Amino acid sequence: MKINDLDLNSLLAKSVRESVSANVPKVVSEAYVAEPKSFKQVTEFVSQKSKDLHTDLYKGYVESLNNVSAKLDTANKSASNPRHSEFRSLKLDEAYNLNAVWLHELFFANCFDPNSQITMDSLSYLKLQRDFGTFDDWQKDFMAVAMAAGNGWVVCGYHTFLRRYVNMIVSHHSGDVMLGVFPVVVLDMWEHSYTRDYLGDKKNYLMAQMKEFNWSVIEDRFKRAEAIAGAVKS
Amino acid sequence: MKINDLDLNSLLAKSVRESVSANVPKVVSEAYVAEPKSFKQVTEFVSQKSKDLHTDLYKGYVESLNNVSAKLDTANKSASNPRHSEFRSLKLDEAYNLNAVWLHELFFANCFDPNSQITMDSLSYLKLQRDFGTFDDWQKDFMAVAMAAGNGWVVCGYHTFLRRYVNMIVSHHSGDVMLGVFPVVVLDMWEHSYTRDYLGDKKNYLMAQMKEFNWSVIEDRFKRAEAIAGAVKS
Amino acid sequence: MKINDLDLNSLLAKSVRESVSANVPKVVSEAYVAEPKSFKQVTEFVSQKSKDLHTDLYKGYVESLNNVSAKLDTANKSASNPRHSEFRSLKLDEAYNLNAVWLHELFFANCFDPNSQITMDSLSYLKLQRDFGTFDDWQKDFMAVAMAAGNGWVVCGYHTFLRRYVNMIVSHHSGDVMLGVFPVVVLDMWEHSYTRDYLGDKKNYLMAQMKEFNWSVIEDRFKRAEAIAGAVKS
Amino acid sequence: MKINDLDLNSLLAKSVRESVSANVPKVVSEAYVAEPKSFKQVTEFVSQKSKDLHTDLYKGYVESLNNVSAKLDTANKSASNPRHSEFRSLKLDEAYNLNAVWLHELFFANCFDPNSQITMDSLSYLKLQRDFGTFDDWQKDFMAVAMAAGNGWVVCGYHTFLRRYVNMIVSHHSGDVMLGVFPVVVLDMWEHSYTRDYLGDKKNYLMAQMKEFNWSVIEDRFKRAEAIAGAVKS
Repeated sequence: MKINDLDLNSLLAKSVRESVSANVPKVVSEAYVAEPKSFKQVTEFVSQKSKDLHTDLYKGYVESLNNVSAKLDTANKSASNPRHSEFRSLKLDEAYNLNAVWLHELFFANCFDPNSQITMDSLSYLKLQRDFGTFDDWQKDFMAVAMAAGNGWVVCGYHTFLRRYVNMIVSHHSGDVMLGVFPVVVLDMWEHSYTRDYLGDKKNYLMAQMKEFNWSVIEDRFKRAEAIAGAVKS
Repeated sequence: MKINDLDLNSLLAKSVRESVSANVPKVVSEAYVAEPKSFKQVTEFVSQKSKDLHTDLYKGYVESLNNVSAKLDTANKSASNPRHSEFRSLKLDEAYNLNAVWLHELFFANCFDPNSQITMDSLSYLKLQRDFGTFDDWQKDFMAVAMAAGNGWVVCGYHTFLRRYVNMIVSHHSGDVMLGVFPVVVLDMWEHSYTRDYLGDKKNYLMAQMKEFNWSVIEDRFKRAEAIAGAVKS
Repeated sequence: MKINDLDLNSLLAKSVRESVSANVPKVVSEAYVAEPKSFKQVTEFVSQKSKDLHTDLYKGYVESLNNVSAKLDTANKSASNPRHSEFRSLKLDEAYNLNAVWLHELFFANCFDPNSQITMDSLSYLKLQRDFGTFDDWQKDFMAVAMAAGNGWVVCGYHTFLRRYVNMIVSHHSGDVMLGVFPVVVLDMWEHSYTRDYLGDKKNYLMAQMKEFNWSVIEDRFKRAEAIAGAVKS
Repeated sequence: MKINDLDLNSLLAKSVRESVSANVPKVVSEAYVAEPKSFKQVTEFVSQKSKDLHTDLYKGYVESLNNVSAKLDTANKSASNPRHSEFRSLKLDEAYNLNAVWLHELFFANCFDPNSQITMDSLSYLKLQRDFGTFDDWQKDFMAVAMAAGNGWVVCGYHTFLRRYVNMIVSHHSGDVMLGVFPVVVLDMWEHSYTRDYLGDKKNYLMAQMKEFNWSVIEDRFKRAEAIAGAVKS
């Protein structure tokens, strides 16, 4: 069969799909509905006003995500194109708001622990040491990525292709993202996170957050990441 | 402790890290070195010239990734900032080239199977049916995402937060990317993939590629994805 | 007046506007309707198939721009937000398609002149020499910007803030764009421009296009640019 | 002459340029050096801390722009490529920082006038009325664009292709930018502009700034814009 011999009307694996279509009830909706979760932001490093602002912004993303998800359910897929189409706009906004929701939840959960403690025999400690040389080197790299991020995020996660932990920038919520990274440590570097309390002193904000990382929450994520690592290798 | 009481010179978890720094040999380099792999592009739907072009582009990304990775090893992390810094530029180019390399390898491996066959009892079939209603609905959604992608990719993968398979746009190599997705089906929608053989007939290119998906390769990825699904839930 | 003393209901310059609103007939539509223009692509450096492809792509942008422009006329402005709103999506697509249309028209008009000739006493020559050292230096810089551009454009134009000519990248159609530049020389570096005829040999395509720049068309633009320069300085 | 008959070594318009190269002294540097300007931010709608923060950020961009501009002077142009090259990174950072400097200067100059006044016979008023229906309609559109902008800018300017005034989003400093727009009214919508004083109440910040637009400064820009309009038409 040569190029251009394709019959556009011949459906792929047609017979298989037809027999299935007959038997499987059509799913009415693929939309996922998210509910905003509650997070204790027990810290003196962030003012109550900033905490409330941040919670409101997070709720806004949950609401937008639900809107986008519902609209995707009925969007016209056959009119999809890269210049201007409802489907394209919705897919871009889906990635943006979905990441925003998840990143905020990861961030709220792994920060604000006044009793922050990491032990040398934890998975967190050992894996970061393995992949960055020392825990200190990981911290320095994490800080450098945070300082480079602009309005965005610094994310440490397990890279399922490199099979190691990496620190990465996320620009805004969905820009410059490494594919296939399972996040373990997340810090918000958008200006709304620190301007109220630290003005332009981003470094002080960063240090304060890192002093209060909840290593117990993070350790749970490392356990999952290591299970993922096992799954990937198998 | 109040905001601004932070001592910038007090290192985080200082004592722990110092004891470690003394004992652990400093890793000299974190740079990962990638070698371009070989892929058989056994298909009549793509001309030999396009195949060679694509292989060359892929090799260029491997070379750039190695350059970036080596430079990151000695980049000045303390000068990192979001306006203009070597570290930021390198981190952006790292995400761009790393994704480019991985996406091309995933694409080359899961395409170009003239004997393409999917069975109804495969994980691929059953999971896509579960998450999209029918296999046909998945195909339609995948095609719509592909048509929306512009110069970029369409990626189907397991979303570790949503705990289901999703189809997503990847703009260029690192834009508009959903975080935490383990890829199972990947198709290149950059113009270099189809302009030589299909000119502007993107849909015909897309149909041709989908007719030759290597479901055996994809099934292996679904197995890993399902193992990841198990790891995430645990 | 202190912060937060603002009365959100007090309209700005209210009395003035009300008296006007009474007298001025409401404009029904701001939508601009563009018609695709015709361009002779008299060149042997580009195949007829590539020419036709390019013309079709251009027409697609004109059509999308008209769609976007019409929708903007009735879009809900009060629901505008940066997370997900029809107005935001339309404004982004407006910039994208409007630039695409204009850039293609500039490109089609300033390329494909087999009798390409530039004289040393032309404005084009003298101004580029003034701002880049020599005409040759301008050419080298233009080529370097073209090679850096990825899927996008290289644009030479008069920068109304710097008050000189600059070469700039335009990523895709609206990314990484310098504000306030009046374009004089435009070259398409998207892969659809050269993949059919040059495969990955972007440099050969670039040289071919530069050999055929229509300096007569460009000279007219320089005359306007110089008039703009005068207007800016006044 | 056919495609691929190009002699890559034959320089364009070679004889012309050589004779010139011999006579014209090579310009040593194209780098432009910017000095930060001083702006009075006479307003009670913004706290002194926010004013100082904003001034510092602006100075940071001036410094980065000067660094980028100096490096461009000696960057390796022949190694330019879109995957990873110093020249590409510098050109992207040039557009980013140059826009940042100019936009901040435009913003500082056209805001913070406690005696803000616009007259119905001003160019500003008449042209906005002409292009948006009523001055009120322009204000509503400007506000909608501002609310859509995210971390970025709302810019009103004269579009030299459309030959009318438009309101546009600028994402960050150089994203989603309409080509060829001469700016007349500029408002900063980055979170650093309002988070300290307004937290998430972006609309209140926006209203406050619009109440204090310096229409005298803006009128001067409209005069230039109208002179540009004349230059473009001629």
